[in-house]
This record gives sequence, structure tokens and C-alpha cells, in this order.
Amino acid sequence: MKRIALLLLGVGALVGGVASTAPKSGLADEEIAPIFGIKIPLGYRDWRLISVAHEAGNLNDLRAVLGNDVAVAAYQDGKLPFPDGAIIARLAWSYVPSEENNKVFGRAQSFVAGAPTNVQFMVKDSTKYASTGGWGFAQFKDGKPADEELLKTCFPCHVPVKARDYVFTGYAPTP
Amino acid sequence: MKRIALLLLGVGALVGGVASTAPKSGLADEEIAPIFGIKIPLGYRDWRLISVAHEAGNLNDLRAVLGNDVAVAAYQDGKLPFPDGAIIARLAWSYVPSEENNKVFGRAQSFVAGAPTNVQFMVKDSTKYASTGGWGFAQFKDGKPADEELLKTCFPCHVPVKARDYVFTGYAPTP
Repeated sequence: MKRIALLLLGVGALVGGVASTAPKSGLADEEIAPIFGIKIPLGYRDWRLISVAHEAGNLNDLRAVLGNDVAVAAYQDGKLPFPDGAIIARLAWSYVPSEENNKVFGRAQSFVAGAPTNVQFMVKDSTKYASTGGWGFAQFKDGKPADEELLKTCFPCHVPVKARDYVFTGYAPTP
Repeated sequence: MKRIALLLLGVGALVGGVASTAPKSGLADEEIAPIFGIKIPLGYRDWRLISVAHEAGNLNDLRAVLGNDVAVAAYQDGKLPFPDGAIIARLAWSYVPSEENNKVFGRAQSFVAGAPTNVQFMVKDSTKYASTGGWGFAQFKDGKPADEELLKTCFPCHVPVKARDYVFTGYAPTP
């Protein structure tokens, strides 16, 4: 019964969408990303996994792409475009060698997630965000939203994957 | 109502533990890993994210570590040892450069998840697996369990992190 209650709380978090900031992070309610008016979705750290990636170069991060229930259902059903209410989250951490793991493997080969760098969101609302392919974009670092100048660059970068509803990341197959 | 029904199905999958193989994967019920007698846990692809990593060298993969509800709760509460019923899944995919992403970034820096390589599980049962720190180990590739020789090597490798209940991966902080 306790489990059910906890899971129902979880459901609330998952369908909460962009309604409010996560209490755990201690963010103020007024932390709203410019242009698209997006807040940090409640409980996004517990969303399901879409895929993983590594960006080398200046970014030098390890990243996970998670989705809310609407987004993951669309991925799993292979449905495009994503329906309104879909939110895709890209979490990133610094790319850190693990000496502990390397010792066990007997060679320098292991890289793990270090400190968080930032989190980005794509929020589907075909009416509200009609001028940017139906997607709103946001980025937060330590709970603070990125500025308007940065967010203006999001949509143009996603145009090359218009055929996949402007989403780069594919769903990683089940091993 | 439909959403609730779907979520309740999800709950069933999450608490299903090691009871049966995932119907989606089309695996036969008899696919049981040697030594520890572990089957592929139902619905593990939808478990919550613990962390991500990259192993270079011969493995050359991108990996996600997911946990069932018991494991994730223990991580989030910072509780050691993990309670019985905790299952940790390590999913791995080949490490593939993304030409599509590189074009957008304007440099060769992007690596994404390619074909799945294999999946590993650590299953906590302090009675059943008392001789290996309370953990049973399994690995599956294309639904087929790894052989006894390979599984014998799991526990000795995990002994250096006995202080963390034999678990290498830490919980990636919320960005």
C-alpha cells in the first residue's frame, strides 16, 4: 500500500509537466526560461531513458536524454510528430576519467559522469510554439535559465532534423 | 483512465523483479543465467536512470546504469547496504560517431549509442547470494546469458568497492 501511494505520487510528478519547479532542487518558482516561458519540470530526473551520448570538444560531457511519459510513449510507438505535452530532457555531466574503474580494468579506459553541467528541455506545444516547429526550448544551469541570446540559437540548429520532428536523439534499442 | 491503467501495468513491470523475461523481447522463459539463476527482469528498459558512462578500449561502448524502484530509492536516500530486492541494470551500446550531430556542431565531437552490446544485472538477495556479498550477477547478449566462466569473474572484480556494497556506479547528481 505504501508502495502504491509512492507510485501515485510519482505519477503526479510525471504528468505534472512544466507546472512547477522541483522542490528537491530548492528552486524559486520564478525561475522561468526566456522566450518560451519554460520552468524546470517537476521530477524530470526520474523520467525514463531515451538514450545516452558523449560530446567531446569544448562541451566534454556525458549526457542522458530522458522523456516524460508522453514523449517515451511516442518514441516506443514510433509516432511522429510528438504529441502536445511531450517533454524531452537532456541532462549533462562533465566527462571524468575514473581511476577506480581503470584499476579494475587494468587500463585507462573508463569515463564517468562528474559534476552536472546543465539541463535542457524541449517542450511540445504545437499552438504555443507554432513558430518554432511546435517546440519550446530551455536550458538551466544550477537552476538558473540561460538567456534569450542562447535560446534563440536552439531552433535553427534543430531544423536539419525537421523530418524527425526536430529531434536529434533516437531511442536506444533494448539490449 | 487509460493513462492510469497503463501506469498500473508499469507498476506491475517494475515490481515484477526477476520473475520473468520481458515479453517484448520475445525471450524464452528458459533463458536463465548460470550460477545465480537470474532471468532478464521484466520491463528493465523503463527503469530510472542512475548514471551514464563511457568505456573506451576493447569495450568501446556507451552505457546507462538503471535501477528498479528498490535500488533507486536506496541511492536517493543514500542507504547502504542495498536492501534485498534491489536490482541494478547496466545497459551498453556500441560507441558510434554521429556525422549528423557533427555537422551541426561544426566539428567531430559527437558520439551516440549504436547497436546494443549486452546488458548486465546485479540482483540483491543477501540470503541466496550470501557467498558473493549478497549480490547475484548476470549478463545477457541478444537475450542469451553469458556462461559460467564469465560470471565467475564478476564478484572478484567488485570486491575493491566492498565499502559501497560492491557497487561501482554512483548516483549522478540532478543538473
